Amino acid sequence: MSKLLSELRERRPLVHCMTNIVVANFQANGLLALGASPVMADAPEEAGEMAAAASCTVLNIGTLHRESLEAMEMAGKAANGAGNPVVLDPVGAGATQFRRDAVSRLLGAVDVTLIRCNAGELAAIAGVDWQASGVDAGDGDMDTETVAAEVARQYGCVVAVTGETDALTDGQRIVRISGGHPVMSRITGAGCLLSAVCGAFLSVGKDDPFRSVAAALALYKAAGERAAETSSLPGSFLSAFIDRLALLGEEDFAVPEPAEEVRA
Amino acid sequence: MSKLLSELRERRPLVHCMTNIVVANFQANGLLALGASPVMADAPEEAGEMAAAASCTVLNIGTLHRESLEAMEMAGKAANGAGNPVVLDPVGAGATQFRRDAVSRLLGAVDVTLIRCNAGELAAIAGVDWQASGVDAGDGDMDTETVAAEVARQYGCVVAVTGETDALTDGQRIVRISGGHPVMSRITGAGCLLSAVCGAFLSVGKDDPFRSVAAALALYKAAGERAAETSSLPGSFLSAFIDRLALLGEEDFAVPEPAEEVRA
Amino acid sequence: MSKLLSELRERRPLVHCMTNIVVANFQANGLLALGASPVMADAPEEAGEMAAAASCTVLNIGTLHRESLEAMEMAGKAANGAGNPVVLDPVGAGATQFRRDAVSRLLGAVDVTLIRCNAGELAAIAGVDWQASGVDAGDGDMDTETVAAEVARQYGCVVAVTGETDALTDGQRIVRISGGHPVMSRITGAGCLLSAVCGAFLSVGKDDPFRSVAAALALYKAAGERAAETSSLPGSFLSAFIDRLALLGEEDFAVPEPAEEVRA
Repeated sequence: MSKLLSELRERRPLVHCMTNIVVANFQANGLLALGASPVMADAPEEAGEMAAAASCTVLNIGTLHRESLEAMEMAGKAANGAGNPVVLDPVGAGATQFRRDAVSRLLGAVDVTLIRCNAGELAAIAGVDWQASGVDAGDGDMDTETVAAEVARQYGCVVAVTGETDALTDGQRIVRISGGHPVMSRITGAGCLLSAVCGAFLSVGKDDPFRSVAAALALYKAAGERAAETSSLPGSFLSAFIDRLALLGEEDFAVPEPAEEVRA
Repeated sequence: MSKLLSELRERRPLVHCMTNIVVANFQANGLLALGASPVMADAPEEAGEMAAAASCTVLNIGTLHRESLEAMEMAGKAANGAGNPVVLDPVGAGATQFRRDAVSRLLGAVDVTLIRCNAGELAAIAGVDWQASGVDAGDGDMDTETVAAEVARQYGCVVAVTGETDALTDGQRIVRISGGHPVMSRITGAGCLLSAVCGAFLSVGKDDPFRSVAAALALYKAAGERAAETSSLPGSFLSAFIDRLALLGEEDFAVPEPAEEVRA
Repeated sequence: MSKLLSELRERRPLVHCMTNIVVANFQANGLLALGASPVMADAPEEAGEMAAAASCTVLNIGTLHRESLEAMEMAGKAANGAGNPVVLDPVGAGATQFRRDAVSRLLGAVDVTLIRCNAGELAAIAGVDWQASGVDAGDGDMDTETVAAEVARQYGCVVAVTGETDALTDGQRIVRISGGHPVMSRITGAGCLLSAVCGAFLSVGKDDPFRSVAAALALYKAAGERAAETSSLPGSFLSAFIDRLALLGEEDFAVPEPAEEVRA
């Protein structure tokens, strides 16, 4: 049983989200329900200062602009300088050249602790051929876990590829987390909020990012399952899911052990 | 009975919304619930590429900026080039000179498939004297259907003027759709989401825009009515409405036949 | 019993919110539920025109950018010129230098009617030493009411420092409003929407800002209490709170009389 959730609720870490206009509200409410403290600040004039003051910074390119990209680079570097974890959520990475370039620039300039993405976004980062569709996972032929492990080794970070089953790897170990509910793919921001929740767990567990993110993924799947018991229709699920993030205790989810080693 | 809804759910069209900070989340959740796939991208660096890749682009000027206006023009032209439908939602068109100019610029540069507006916004586009009030319909004296038909002929598009009763015209035919519930005027984004829903229907029925939009309007009224049975208070109606967009089937709404011809 | 709420619902004032991407939707829905008409417009090209046309303008720096700050100054001056009240919500004022400078610039250029803030934001405005944490109130040692009264006198405005108990002062009189529910600190935008609700009340009661804001604060506490009877979990509370803003009548809240004079 992970003690991270109680530590999170006790310390109430400040999670700095540089995020998109679609999910900002849902992310903030989800973090507050969980017990963290969200702050959104993406102007170049303050992003670095906020990142240094926060416990963790989440870079989300969902509705990116030239100026917010610049601010994200500044914030990522400031977080690095302060020894704070950085989460990259490469929303729709393969959808346009602008997003491909942005992800490449951020991964080049910032030491990222975690990349939280779907399969299509992973393919875009790894340069694997893939049929992307906007910000959805899309379709393609790829050994997701092998590619994820390669990306993890290349950038010296943890990679979480989430979907029906999540795969988490640090390049050496891999852990799979199943659960959740199909309605989670019918609401907007499920992945974006998950990135922020991972950021909250990394804030209190930055000494072991792999294990901290595993706990975040497991909690999230459990919250989805429980919320879907209240309603599996998307509108009422949204409320129920926020409620569950507030209600869930450490006894409600199990953090799986790494199941196997990946080929180096 | 329209087959468009099942086709929409099968094809899951990518609807590109260039939209405002107030309704982005509601639009995305509404499109997902309905069965479409939303994507928001309004940077000039990527708006055109996204519009070409998407099935339909929706231009919404609710919280417009100089740069997003530029991006909208680029996206509209790219959608035109790719043969994709374009929806214009001229939010608060009469409220400021900036919005009047923006609508005029977009209608001049882009072949719009559908203008989805309220009576006050129609008046602003047509240059009819009107007492606007922010983004509300406001008050004035205008033969809405005649003016809508004129605007439709002028821009070679379909015009939907929505409110208690919707009027849809292609300049020759007119159809009126009633139903819905008064609480729909007490939530934000009801019109904005409707524009996006029309975009989703146009994505699968672009060969007959008039009929596709009629189906979208009829579905939307039906969803509002059903949701109001769950709750007619605005907060809980919001959830119920998203739920209904997911639940509604083709048997739940009738697409009315054009009732009469308008005077040319 | 205050008659302001019925007047608000009758006149349906246009409240111009220059606001952040996190709470824009919640603010708009809250204002609509209450009976006001929200409009969001923060481009420099139109902010002044919108502010002159609206009944009240709310300046919220939650996700501020250089350009929106410029637009806020223009809007504030235009509102002043039109004799319309201006509300300043200095979100996270102490969190970064950019925010401190922004608040100082706005207070220097615009005659603000009301500052609605939390204790940490008040400390930042007053230059009192304080341990801020993002956009939360944070911790520190300050006689809140004395400092609030000083700030009120300095800027010739009304100051509302809200939290578990609200303190409202015009520099001479003080009134305390208790009530509400702890879950209100677990949802995002509770303070931001409150600023907008104050703006709606100021729109219909600008001849007596102190009393109008007192009514807004009392209504808001009552709405929170009632909504928490439906659910004290944050996700379902959000819906219930919007519902309550629509349901509440003048008989449901009492506007407290100023309890004492503050030392000048």
